[in-house]
Amino acid sequence: MKNKPAFGLTMGDPAGIGPEICLRAMHDATVLKSCVPVLFGDASVLERLKSSPAFSSKSNGHVCRVVSAAEFDNISEITHPLIVDCEVIDAKKIQPVKISAAAGRAAYIYTEQAIAAALAGKTLGVITGPVHKEALNLAGVKFPGQTEIFTALTGAKRSCMMLYSDKLTVSMATTHIGYHEVPQKISVERLLNVIELTANAMRRMLQREPHLGICGLNPHAGEHGLFGNHEEEKFVEPAVAGARRKGIDISGPLVPDAAFTLNVRKKFDAIVTLYHDQGHIPFKMLAFDTGVNVTLGLPIIRTSVDHGTAFDIAWQGKADPTSLFSAIQLAVRLSQERSRNFKTPAGRRTKRKSKVLNPV
Amino acid sequence: MKNKPAFGLTMGDPAGIGPEICLRAMHDATVLKSCVPVLFGDASVLERLKSSPAFSSKSNGHVCRVVSAAEFDNISEITHPLIVDCEVIDAKKIQPVKISAAAGRAAYIYTEQAIAAALAGKTLGVITGPVHKEALNLAGVKFPGQTEIFTALTGAKRSCMMLYSDKLTVSMATTHIGYHEVPQKISVERLLNVIELTANAMRRMLQREPHLGICGLNPHAGEHGLFGNHEEEKFVEPAVAGARRKGIDISGPLVPDAAFTLNVRKKFDAIVTLYHDQGHIPFKMLAFDTGVNVTLGLPIIRTSVDHGTAFDIAWQGKADPTSLFSAIQLAVRLSQERSRNFKTPAGRRTKRKSKVLNPV
Repeated sequence: MKNKPAFGLTMGDPAGIGPEICLRAMHDATVLKSCVPVLFGDASVLERLKSSPAFSSKSNGHVCRVVSAAEFDNISEITHPLIVDCEVIDAKKIQPVKISAAAGRAAYIYTEQAIAAALAGKTLGVITGPVHKEALNLAGVKFPGQTEIFTALTGAKRSCMMLYSDKLTVSMATTHIGYHEVPQKISVERLLNVIELTANAMRRMLQREPHLGICGLNPHAGEHGLFGNHEEEKFVEPAVAGARRKGIDISGPLVPDAAFTLNVRKKFDAIVTLYHDQGHIPFKMLAFDTGVNVTLGLPIIRTSVDHGTAFDIAWQGKADPTSLFSAIQLAVRLSQERSRNFKTPAGRRTKRKSKVLNPV
Repeated sequence: MKNKPAFGLTMGDPAGIGPEICLRAMHDATVLKSCVPVLFGDASVLERLKSSPAFSSKSNGHVCRVVSAAEFDNISEITHPLIVDCEVIDAKKIQPVKISAAAGRAAYIYTEQAIAAALAGKTLGVITGPVHKEALNLAGVKFPGQTEIFTALTGAKRSCMMLYSDKLTVSMATTHIGYHEVPQKISVERLLNVIELTANAMRRMLQREPHLGICGLNPHAGEHGLFGNHEEEKFVEPAVAGARRKGIDISGPLVPDAAFTLNVRKKFDAIVTLYHDQGHIPFKMLAFDTGVNVTLGLPIIRTSVDHGTAFDIAWQGKADPTSLFSAIQLAVRLSQERSRNFKTPAGRRTKRKSKVLNPV
């Protein structure tokens, strides 16, 4: 039997549901069968949670080895689940369900350390717990979300967010920016990058050429220039043509309000969307609580829960860990399928050279 | 038994599926039981369609009286179904499934005449067949859609589009404009108008105070100003506060990608959306082919099919008339419920004064 892959897991905002769903994962038989999880967080927070009546009934008594960050640095091969105690925040000072700079800073440091471990080749990648964007902002973190943190800290040249589920998979050309900023962020180059990243990821997942679609920006996809600034003609159509020249099977610009009806979406393995809500609205309708957020284009694997910190139910033992479990399974699947050979449309065989540096 | 209400029905673009679904309606027992339909179109087009093999099997042999526009002017009371022959287009010249200026012009004239009949009090309102926006544009019609035609020709001071179905009802602050134009069209006044129009319509339909929601504009509803130009704080929040002062039960700004998940949408009778696709994407996913498009704020009732001209299947006898039948039933329901008394939140009883001039 080959070694199970090691993956970093980040605890997310300590005041949210991240700590409890991560603890559930560290104790889950299916998770432990498929990979070796390394949880980056604060041991004191996890201890406080474990000893709370709301959580103790969920624990199966399994105990993980806790190591300091310095001890972790000296471990060359990870064979058993670990908790890396980043020692950022004092558990007594945490106010569950409160947005705070301290919790935002802690969430950022867990992520930073988990990325460093993956870049150093100790893990194959990172599965992230939920952070709160306002808490990150209060802590002076200048990234609007985790996707952007991973892109910057891994030095990725091009990356994008993809939401994956059995019912619908969407990737996004733009994510955490204001509504009004979207048109200026869309270019042929950006759309072509997102199409290629999506095609690469889906090819790995499906082991065949995927069928992709891409939405227009305007109502009715502009109705041939009647609405909007011809973004469909200027950006989407040339990107589709460019992708086809590279052998990618893609249709579009699709009329956005038709693209997600059953009859249309079932034709596609994934649909490229142009802005956050164009993809998130249909995705969350179909895969709320079970979807996985994947960052494409990084030199490491990164998947994430597809929900927020859920402060309204945090620290009560009520949080559903399904999305986190799905995120772990998808990371494992991506790591397995990366190691297989597959044929590119141009007929050339590609082989993974490095576990760490081959972009997903 | 009281008289059945008369409603205009427009044939839509002659080259699309409008003629066949309208003919189905003129022959449908349920439709004929609930209202007296008056179809505005071209008799020669309907004759050609009726004699085609694809359609003849769908007809039940029922024959409608055909009158010219001049004859129609002289009819004071409508007691039986009629076809008003607008004589705009030569049936022989129609190329089914083709976008053309001639077909666009015809569709516009049917609408214009149906509106005039309603404004004259001959019918209670108009149920419209599907038009093609590019054909209208080729014909020199300067309105981007039928909602805008009705608003202009009835002189409505404020109006908005609402999509109604059993599963989800959404109204829209903006509709057929480019993506980039939306932020500049949103104001506290506009949002408050749309909230009030939606509340009025839902109150009539439900005979009780409705529970409304309204979406934010930006991802995560701006996450307290992190994304966007504070449109949530500047426009949505004051509109919500203003509506509450008028006794309307409304929540928001809702996070757009959460608003349409089952757990959130089931809390609301209708959700106000800020742009076309924010409302249309979730609506079409849930109510494709069965939804009804209603224009609120007009002095007449106007409902419409919620689909396009479907050129790909037009003139083949394949078109599904469900959305048109639903639109007719909703118009009848709106006309019945307008005539009942209901209590406004302020406790005052309102009574309909005029069948025609009380805005829906």
